[in-house]
Amino acid sequence: MDSFNRERYWIWYPGDFELYHAMKQNFSRVERGMGWPAFWKSEGFRNRVAFRRTYELKEETSFLVSSKAVGFVLVEEAQRHPDAGTDVTFGDPGADVASENAGLDCVQGDAVREPVQKKYPFGQRIVCGPGTVRISVHAARIEALPSIYIEGTEIFSDSGWMAEDYDRPPVSAGTCKYFTKPEQDPSVWDYTEKEYQPVCVEEVGGGVLCEFETELTAQIVIERDAGVQGLRVYCGESRSEALDGKNCYYSWQPDADTGRCPRCAVRYAYIPGCPADGLRIKAIHQYVDIPIRASFSCGDELLKRIWDTAAHTFQLCSGIFFIDGIKRDKWIWSGDAYQSILVNQYLMRDPDIDRRTLLALRGNDPMTTHINTIVDYSLFWILSVRAHCEAYGDTEFLRDIYPKMVSLMEFCGEQLDDRGFLIGREKDWIYIDWADMEKEGPVCALQMLFAACYDAMAWAAETLGSNKATDTAGKGTEEAEHDTDSSLQNFAARYREHYENLVRAINTCFWDEAQGAYIDSFVSGNAHVTRHANIFAIRYGIADRLQQEKIVANVLKNDRVPAITTPYFKFYELDVLGMLGYLDDVMETIRSYWGGMLERGAVTFWEEYDPEVVGEAQYDMYGDRFGKSLCHAWAASPIYLLSKYFRCFEDFEITVR
Amino acid sequence: MDSFNRERYWIWYPGDFELYHAMKQNFSRVERGMGWPAFWKSEGFRNRVAFRRTYELKEETSFLVSSKAVGFVLVEEAQRHPDAGTDVTFGDPGADVASENAGLDCVQGDAVREPVQKKYPFGQRIVCGPGTVRISVHAARIEALPSIYIEGTEIFSDSGWMAEDYDRPPVSAGTCKYFTKPEQDPSVWDYTEKEYQPVCVEEVGGGVLCEFETELTAQIVIERDAGVQGLRVYCGESRSEALDGKNCYYSWQPDADTGRCPRCAVRYAYIPGCPADGLRIKAIHQYVDIPIRASFSCGDELLKRIWDTAAHTFQLCSGIFFIDGIKRDKWIWSGDAYQSILVNQYLMRDPDIDRRTLLALRGNDPMTTHINTIVDYSLFWILSVRAHCEAYGDTEFLRDIYPKMVSLMEFCGEQLDDRGFLIGREKDWIYIDWADMEKEGPVCALQMLFAACYDAMAWAAETLGSNKATDTAGKGTEEAEHDTDSSLQNFAARYREHYENLVRAINTCFWDEAQGAYIDSFVSGNAHVTRHANIFAIRYGIADRLQQEKIVANVLKNDRVPAITTPYFKFYELDVLGMLGYLDDVMETIRSYWGGMLERGAVTFWEEYDPEVVGEAQYDMYGDRFGKSLCHAWAASPIYLLSKYFRCFEDFEITVR
Repeated sequence: MDSFNRERYWIWYPGDFELYHAMKQNFSRVERGMGWPAFWKSEGFRNRVAFRRTYELKEETSFLVSSKAVGFVLVEEAQRHPDAGTDVTFGDPGADVASENAGLDCVQGDAVREPVQKKYPFGQRIVCGPGTVRISVHAARIEALPSIYIEGTEIFSDSGWMAEDYDRPPVSAGTCKYFTKPEQDPSVWDYTEKEYQPVCVEEVGGGVLCEFETELTAQIVIERDAGVQGLRVYCGESRSEALDGKNCYYSWQPDADTGRCPRCAVRYAYIPGCPADGLRIKAIHQYVDIPIRASFSCGDELLKRIWDTAAHTFQLCSGIFFIDGIKRDKWIWSGDAYQSILVNQYLMRDPDIDRRTLLALRGNDPMTTHINTIVDYSLFWILSVRAHCEAYGDTEFLRDIYPKMVSLMEFCGEQLDDRGFLIGREKDWIYIDWADMEKEGPVCALQMLFAACYDAMAWAAETLGSNKATDTAGKGTEEAEHDTDSSLQNFAARYREHYENLVRAINTCFWDEAQGAYIDSFVSGNAHVTRHANIFAIRYGIADRLQQEKIVANVLKNDRVPAITTPYFKFYELDVLGMLGYLDDVMETIRSYWGGMLERGAVTFWEEYDPEVVGEAQYDMYGDRFGKSLCHAWAASPIYLLSKYFRCFEDFEITVR
Repeated sequence: MDSFNRERYWIWYPGDFELYHAMKQNFSRVERGMGWPAFWKSEGFRNRVAFRRTYELKEETSFLVSSKAVGFVLVEEAQRHPDAGTDVTFGDPGADVASENAGLDCVQGDAVREPVQKKYPFGQRIVCGPGTVRISVHAARIEALPSIYIEGTEIFSDSGWMAEDYDRPPVSAGTCKYFTKPEQDPSVWDYTEKEYQPVCVEEVGGGVLCEFETELTAQIVIERDAGVQGLRVYCGESRSEALDGKNCYYSWQPDADTGRCPRCAVRYAYIPGCPADGLRIKAIHQYVDIPIRASFSCGDELLKRIWDTAAHTFQLCSGIFFIDGIKRDKWIWSGDAYQSILVNQYLMRDPDIDRRTLLALRGNDPMTTHINTIVDYSLFWILSVRAHCEAYGDTEFLRDIYPKMVSLMEFCGEQLDDRGFLIGREKDWIYIDWADMEKEGPVCALQMLFAACYDAMAWAAETLGSNKATDTAGKGTEEAEHDTDSSLQNFAARYREHYENLVRAINTCFWDEAQGAYIDSFVSGNAHVTRHANIFAIRYGIADRLQQEKIVANVLKNDRVPAITTPYFKFYELDVLGMLGYLDDVMETIRSYWGGMLERGAVTFWEEYDPEVVGEAQYDMYGDRFGKSLCHAWAASPIYLLSKYFRCFEDFEITVR
């Protein structure tokens, strides 16, 4: 075993790192001096964990465990140095001793000897071996994620360690490629930093207004000969916001010692009641360094600017997790994350942020509430796992996460009506889109997603089943593995059957042959048609060829059916137009809609854009002054659309490192 | 509503305060420089909660919310002051807005007006009313329990507020009588303090040894003209332990500024390499002030000393929770807590510590592992709830906790064999006692407890059912309440049936007519008899009169059946002897066993006492030097035995305030 080449990692109970940082992320939203934590079930991390591993050591070796947790290291081996450490027999907790001993038979010469247990504190170099050595690291921490780091040549921490939570069977420990050094603390994210000087500083109304070259997620830092005491910094995504002391989202008093303000979204910073003289301002942009791997070039300058702005927008919204926007909500939303996963595969091709986001969204079993409280967002999580695993061939992640896909589907399975339609539980939120849609009884658009989930589950079970068959080829045919394999095939068949039944029921109940379209809901008898269910019907292959043609004529190209108004759903509409080959329509929209934002001076793309609204009003949303997020991940869809449908266009060059 | 007379409390999600402090308690064990956190599933607190309440206000009023959490206050009322605060319409999270509005119809004059929502930060005085006002407080905290405190004349925090965790239906907020002031933080326990000066200071081996009048849970504080830098304090329950630098459990470097050491169990403190001159030592005993309400007097000086020492021992082990011992383990064990609840009813009669302990032990639903990993300790939890509720007539607590009793029994119900015997899951620990007992297959002593649990469940359902009938008398007869009532009666009948079936099966499989006793286990065919199952059979009324007589003759009064060796089980044996009227035997044991410890100089009663072991060896346990706890709750049973069986004895006076 050439362990010298292998990386050491901080380790924790798998998934807990993501749950811990997701809480920090979802509780980080601030609005005009008020914290606004996300309003859904927040899953905590485990406070008490144990890590175990057994080594067969050819020679004596040493290791050292670092941790901020409360705990100790237990080393079990045949007695070797009578003087090394203190022999410890465990106290009354007999069960733990029994389990600590399980699986360790120390053979020395011909005699099987009782293993000797020794306990050591963290931070002390421990010598052990040669022979069979079983190491258990016990760790407890209340205020943050318990994690450990082990340094040694033979014995060191990586995902080869097993983690236990005293509840479920042992699982492989969790790691993150950003946490590999003993001096780190996995409960504190180490952002990469880049300094920006203002591109423009002007005196306005007795204060100083600074503009940076683009929007950032930065700490504003102020230096002044007279000190920073008494100063207040108003940050804005727009010039108007920074200058509006009352309605501006973020304002801070710089730290008296360092002059630093907390990290927040900022393009403009205004310091009232302060002359520019003797004042130095900079922004320290703090980000997770996920490089862009796709490059786009074409002769069309506008398209190039749209690509670059979308890429910048997307990068800003891709940190520890995919978040919706950097000023607001700063939350991890499953529907938004699905679109980000679809963009990521073309732009950054970073599977790690997908995995972190998916683990953070899903939480622990048992599943008791819908993700983000929204029924369709639970379903998008299943579709996200599929999108991720297909993009990167990530069967390992699929295998780890599959049980949570099954339990999510079981949770949904308890919320069906007689026909098998998913209706959610009382008070559950079925979102779909901000649109005028009938939502009484079973909602058609939701059933489309649910059908796509059955299809995804069948795909997942088949993928794991066939992968297992490949894995075990040539390794003999153990009964147990055969069983698992065939049970996966059975599950796949069952999901496939659910899929077919549901599609049949959808077509029976929601397809309106007279209108040549799917209706929102059949309860009212109104046969109301919106674009949403029809778009999903094409996107997820539920409508047959003939139905698709009718949908195009009667819905997509029919101006009497209300237009999609959110960039969120425009993503799906344009994707479907692309799938059907209406590339002119897609290109026209990209140029007018995203080009329109650039004409308004956008440096990042917005949560929403209405060409009819001009002036200050364009920054409002949800009836809130400056409520609109001007840097929103779902507005990055041109990356996806250009990459997916225009890759082979003359004059376009999209290359991915 | 005369609200001026009503107490304000810090509030939190009910049970989370107990789970948070239980983690602190269970992670606080230290042994020779190593943290030793309890090795069972540690249930975390909820990080994101909301508190809500609707008021009908006759006039304008104001209130102020304090919290260390991240969050805000949402006030919904008919618009009143156009200029008060900022009108806020919620952002994209439509579901929350919908739920926020539920149930609030603001009527102003004749017109029903849309309620207006206003958001406020914590720490700001908020004016509202008159009229219907709905207040929601949103709070998130990662590192500690989120909690809030509301000051106001009409609007203030108490258990009348409802708490939500975005998972389950709203429940009444949790409170604690010790947290009623705004400047407190419910995540930090405010101990009562009492200063102790040493009763003896002597120079030993170039250092200073201090003895305090009794054992304490104290911070040792050192003052020295030359400063405390470089000093180390070794704390011992015995003189020998304090003087044994290697094996002593607790040793500390006093804080350089304050001279204080961390709180720990201490009777002797030794500071090596330090002359007594110019050194001042004291102990600040930190405790939860739960007064002793029973007083005992009798002409027998030894019995009086036994009572007082037992009372002192028990008080030391009764803090935020009932713990096993103050030096070791400092953990909350369910089997130990059961005995403490039985003692508490006679000594302190404090129902609050019972409730805190029971909530801490049980954790959240779903139940996935046995309490403390021990099957019998899960069962003792059910019996503890009954013991508590019967002692104080605490039907309110029974109603709150009943669903968790049901889910615990359901968890056990999944672990039965064909005959209905509880066998636990693979690797589950069936403890019963440190004794040589056959535990293959169903364990008889465990079935005795399980039968007692069925009986307790029937009692609980009957109690709630009959109480509900009383509650609703004269309030009309709503269908729903009738249903609940009759379903409780059905449950009671079902539990009663389970009880009878199990008792029948126990007598069929475990009663050995030839030996006139219950056997440990029937799998081996050895028909091995120990005292344990037979003691439980009497204690829980499972053996009939004839069987009881046989058990007394063949087991309890039969020296060939191995004696009980632990004070833990001696509690049950003496209780049964008392029940059967063998009071001379009980009194003789109290005088010899507990009197024996006093003869050895005990100031608190020990985890274990073997009259045969003398000298230094008497401090060892579990093969560990000084491993024995010298202040252990389960050794306080004389309180229980004297109060229960000797109350009416001539010359005895036991009075309870």
